[in-house]
Order: sequence, then structure tokens, then C-alpha cells
Amino acid sequence: MGPGPVNADPRVLRALSTPLVGQYDPVMTGYMAQTQALYREVFATRNDATLLVDGTSRAGIEAALVSLVRPGQRVLVPVFGRFGHLLAEIAQRAGAEVHTIGTTWGQVFPTSVVEEAVRRVRPHLLAVVQGDTSTTMNQPLDELGDVCARHGALFYTDATASLGGNPFEADAWGLDAATAGLQKCLSGPPGSAPLTLSDRAVEVVRGRRRVEAGIREDDDEDVGEPIGSNYFDLGMVLDYWGPRRLNHHTEATSMLYAAHECARVLLDEGRQKVVDRHARAGRAMLAGVRGLGLGVFGDLGHRMHNVVAPVIPDGVDGEGVRGALLHDFGIEIGTSFGPLRGRVWRIGTMGVNARLDTVLTTLAALEHVLRRAGVPVPPSGGVDAAADAWAEG
Amino acid sequence: MGPGPVNADPRVLRALSTPLVGQYDPVMTGYMAQTQALYREVFATRNDATLLVDGTSRAGIEAALVSLVRPGQRVLVPVFGRFGHLLAEIAQRAGAEVHTIGTTWGQVFPTSVVEEAVRRVRPHLLAVVQGDTSTTMNQPLDELGDVCARHGALFYTDATASLGGNPFEADAWGLDAATAGLQKCLSGPPGSAPLTLSDRAVEVVRGRRRVEAGIREDDDEDVGEPIGSNYFDLGMVLDYWGPRRLNHHTEATSMLYAAHECARVLLDEGRQKVVDRHARAGRAMLAGVRGLGLGVFGDLGHRMHNVVAPVIPDGVDGEGVRGALLHDFGIEIGTSFGPLRGRVWRIGTMGVNARLDTVLTTLAALEHVLRRAGVPVPPSGGVDAAADAWAEG
Repeated sequence: MGPGPVNADPRVLRALSTPLVGQYDPVMTGYMAQTQALYREVFATRNDATLLVDGTSRAGIEAALVSLVRPGQRVLVPVFGRFGHLLAEIAQRAGAEVHTIGTTWGQVFPTSVVEEAVRRVRPHLLAVVQGDTSTTMNQPLDELGDVCARHGALFYTDATASLGGNPFEADAWGLDAATAGLQKCLSGPPGSAPLTLSDRAVEVVRGRRRVEAGIREDDDEDVGEPIGSNYFDLGMVLDYWGPRRLNHHTEATSMLYAAHECARVLLDEGRQKVVDRHARAGRAMLAGVRGLGLGVFGDLGHRMHNVVAPVIPDGVDGEGVRGALLHDFGIEIGTSFGPLRGRVWRIGTMGVNARLDTVLTTLAALEHVLRRAGVPVPPSGGVDAAADAWAEG
Repeated sequence: MGPGPVNADPRVLRALSTPLVGQYDPVMTGYMAQTQALYREVFATRNDATLLVDGTSRAGIEAALVSLVRPGQRVLVPVFGRFGHLLAEIAQRAGAEVHTIGTTWGQVFPTSVVEEAVRRVRPHLLAVVQGDTSTTMNQPLDELGDVCARHGALFYTDATASLGGNPFEADAWGLDAATAGLQKCLSGPPGSAPLTLSDRAVEVVRGRRRVEAGIREDDDEDVGEPIGSNYFDLGMVLDYWGPRRLNHHTEATSMLYAAHECARVLLDEGRQKVVDRHARAGRAMLAGVRGLGLGVFGDLGHRMHNVVAPVIPDGVDGEGVRGALLHDFGIEIGTSFGPLRGRVWRIGTMGVNARLDTVLTTLAALEHVLRRAGVPVPPSGGVDAAADAWAEG
């Protein structure tokens, strides 16, 4: 019940143990094509260039940034938590001229503030985290595509922590690139990064085309300056996933099976129903921690559905409470980073864990641990409030 | 029975479906520490800095090269197949001044030729593939560590295709860095890259230290110019695997389970016994394809134990034979790249597939497919020769 990775869906665990097939076996290339189609639905996009990057979520982020941004180009990152800092750092290492705007942790950016910065910086790319688990905030993205279109910027978001559990509309929001991971609301293991690129983004990537020596044909011409990474060269990755099936990496078979099944689990339940279930579980957990008398961090009008940050009461050893929950009750909740370190816990309700029983069990255990830590908590205050909130639907 | 990925060991498939735990759960950090200890044995090293890079084999290569080489430093790559070209390309993208030496495909380099080039180029790093599946050749590495020591170069090898099935001695051979994958002789899925760094290599990596904004403490100072990648910054990866457990990526839990079990499977059988089994299966397959009257590509005095390249007979449609083997017999063998495209097949005997029954079944099927393709093949010529070679031990 932490901010992720969380428990995987049993169907995904079973998919992981599927026997391997060769990378060019028609069964494998068929699974790859199916996986692309499934993630088009998950991202709500018609982008042909929808695929997996073989690595954890930040591998997806780095692939997007290093492939879309040339050294010296301007990137604007609105930073509202730890993962905004990460986007800025990855863009800096890719040689970009990075500009950031900041806000107090626990807040998101109004569209007008982002637009003002876009007007001032004139970035090649706007890079924004959607849900930043470090603060539990969910940045509204629905108006930022228009902002980018008005100012000629590419629009990229990292939706690792939010995708599946919160509304997400790649095409309707005008996104040029989005990346994610499996280990949050998609109920899968970390280690595979779904990614989608608009046609405009593909055009940018194709402006720096390479085919590796050793497999290139006579008519493969170099285009532009090479991308500063081979592994994250999305042009090469596209050539591998595309009809030419030009070998790049060897697709991570078992993680592909997992990603494939994560999407099927989500789409079998239904995209909107999964978001609704996360919203309901998130409301119940929020009501529950308040019912225990705890404060809650951040602007609750812009919180992620899938993680909440109860304030650690004065005088309570936050790590001691986490340890007791883990060792005595088998329930993991999260610590926090940077300015919030030691100030809040982070409790997740995501993926297969966004359920009534997990919410109530966590609150029941937390109640006992807090009482033993000397915090005056109302008997059943958390469980009752959460059950009531859940019952409201 | 291709050049990899091959079938995974059933124990590894089962490990993949183990339920997830949180990344800082003591169970998880315990598995991480065990995995490090296991791969020290697999690589035959005492290097503390032994861990997994979360990505396919080429992610491990890129992590090693981008972390060990600064822009402008010289890298020498002896190229004897496709994967030598890959090392050169990755080093180039990392900004290195790359020098290559070449040889005919199907040959390896004598030590004296490498030393002459090291003397001339004075590289910061010598980067050599051990087993290059594109040509089936296995470059001797045992004298190159001394060459590097004499000329002050770091010594790196990519052992993806060879590790486990061929002798490998990281410390005894004076290696500063080595990378691998699971999908060849280790009987696991692609998507995790074991890596080891000598203390000298760690010192080079630590010369460019960064801690991310968002998680850094007041006494975390920047050292040197940053490495040109966040994901592949081995200093950060070491801080995550090391005692400070500084968050970087989220370790790919299921792939860690797989890597852990791959090493246990190998070490349970015994390092030398696994090499011997690969040597025996390789000899049997070589005898078998010759027993069918096929030529074999390359310098057989320096072949990898785990892959052989039969020459496609004149007038035979190589892809047609591969298709018949796959669709009619359920056996995959490999095609080839670059100058060997259409000239040879590649047949693997590696990992759990390095067995008598897989060798004989493949040869029996190949005999029938070749005969139907009009090639005059001696009845049981392959099976008999392979069985005899296997019996010799």
C-alpha cells in the first residue's frame, strides 16, 4: 500500500512465467503488435508509434527526452515535486538548455502560469509530470496541449504514477509524447516503459536517423546528427517494432508478456471503470486517514486518486510506524523525499490494491499502530469513515 | 535452437511469477544483495560493484561505456563481427574518439595485433566483445588484461553471448568492466544486464558523481562533469545498490527474481560443469552438421561453444529451410547479419538447450527439411555423428 511498486495482478504474475519464444518468431512479433494496439487504448491515442521501452519508467523518460531534444534546444519543466526535478536533470544530461518554474510542494500549476513561462522561454519542448507521487499532486494537462500548439512547442508528459488510475487522454490533450511504467495503477512489475509518440514527434525523431553498422543496407542513409544514445534512439526502436523489424535490442520477452497482460487486465475491466475505482478507493482512504484524526498534505482539489500523504503527528516516529505496519501487519506504506522527508507518509491505493478490503485493512492496522505509538485515535474512526465514503460510490 | 534468446529454464520461469515486494522491503534489498553475491561467482570476481542494469544487454554495454568514458577520450574496439560495430557505435554516441581495428568475419585477433593497436592508439579503454554470435567466434581475452595494464588502458568486455557457456574469469583476466545478459547461456529472459566493475573502474565512475535534486542532502557535492545519461549513470546505480540505497530507478523486481534464479541454476550445476556441457553439446552439433555434409563457417579453433554457423548449400533457400523447421517441427534456428546474410544459418546450443536430445532432434529435423529441399543428405548422418561426438564426452 505504498506509492508503488505495488502488488501485481495475479494474471500478470502468471503471464510473466509464459515460456519464451524467439524474437522473430511470428508469435513474438504478433504479441508485439498486439501490445502496441493495447497501449493505444490505454493512452487513448491513435499514434502508430506506441511501444515499450525496455527499462524502468525513467528509461522511458530518457528515451523520450534524448530522442526529441537536440543539444542546445530549450526545454521547459514546471517542477512541482521530485519527478519534475528528474525530468529537468535528464533533459540537462541530454544537453538541453533547461528552464524550470517552481511552486510550493503540494500545489500544481495554473494553466496561465505555464503559458506565461512558455511565452517567455519559447521552449522546443514542454515536459511535465502528470502525477508526482512525491507530493501526491496531479497536474491538470487538458489545457496545456493548446498552450503548446499556440507557441509551437512539443508537449511531453510522464504519466508513470497516474496512468490508469486518473483520467488520461493523449490525443484529446494534444500530447506529442507520453511515457509510463507498469508498477503503479497498471498492476505490473517495474521494468517496462510504455511510450507513445505523435506523428509530429516521430518526424522530429526521424530527423536524426541511423541504422547500425553490421545490419545496415546500402540504401540506409544517415540523417542529421545522431541521437546521443543508441539504446534510447527511438528511431531505431521504431525500426525494430515497425514492419522492417530491424534488430536493435532483443525485446524483453517476459516483460512484454507482463505489459501485454497489464493492458488486458485494465481494458477488460474498462478504462473509465478503472479510473472510477481508483477515485473511489482514493476517497475512502482520504476519509479514513482523516477519520483517524490525521492531517493530509497538499491541495486536495488536485490530488492523485491513487496516493494520499497523511501528515505524521508531532512527536511520532514516522519510520517506526512504517516498520510496525510492515513487520507486524505485513502492510507497506511509503516514506517521503526532500522537503517532505519525515513530515508525511504516503499511502497508495492503486492497481489491484485499489479495493475496499485493502483500504480497511490498512486503516485498521494503522489505527492500532498509532495508538500504540501514543496517538489518541478514535476507535474505528478510520475504518468507519472509509467504509462510509466507499458506500457513497 | 537459435543464437538466443532461447528457452528459459523452468525454474527461471517460475521465479518470474513470484509476487512483488516493495523496493525497500528488507526482502527485496536482501534479494538484491544475494544477486550481487551470485553474479560475483558467475563473473569469477571479487568486485564489490557487481549488479544488474535494468534493460537488455545493450543497456549494460551503454551503461559501462557512457560511465567509463568521457567525451573526447579514446576508445579502441577490435571489430570481428556485428557486436564489435555496436560497441564502437555506442562509444561514438557517448562522445568518445573511437578507433577500430578489423579482421575478416570468422576470425579473431591475435594478442599481438591488439597490443600493436593499443600501443599506437593509447586508448583510455579497450572494448572487446567476447563471443560475437554474428560470426560464432570467441575472442581470447586471457592475455588482453596484461596488455591493458602495460599501456594504462581500462579493459572492458561484453560477454552477453558467451558468459556461462565458455570460460570467463573477470579477475584473473584483469577486466575492469564486463556486461552480459540472461538470454543466452544463462537460460533466462532478455531484459536484465548483469554488470561488474573493478575498483579502478569504480574510481573512474566516482570521478563524475551526482545525486539527484529532490533527494540530495546538504553534504552531497557534485564531482566532475556529469555523465551524459541519468539512467546509465553507474555512480547513481551504485548508490542505489549500495548501503545508502539512494533511490534511482525502481529496481525491476520480476527481472531481478529471474536474474537471481539464472545464477542459482548455473551455480547449482557448477560453473565448470556448465561450461563443459556447452562444450560437449557444441562439439556434438558441429559434428552433426558436418555429418549432414554441410560446411561450417569460421575459424573452428576459436569458435564459441554455444553457436555454430552451417553454410547454406548452393541453391538452397535458407529462409525457406528456417521456416520449415519452425512451422513443421517447432524448432527455431537463426538467420544472419551483414556480410553473412543468406550465406549461413546459426544454430545455438545454449543454456537449458545445451542437451543431447535437443541436438539430435534439431539434426533429425534438419535432415528431413534439407532432403525435401533437394539436398543429398546421408540418412542419419547428422544424428549419428552428433551421438558419437556426445558419447566421447
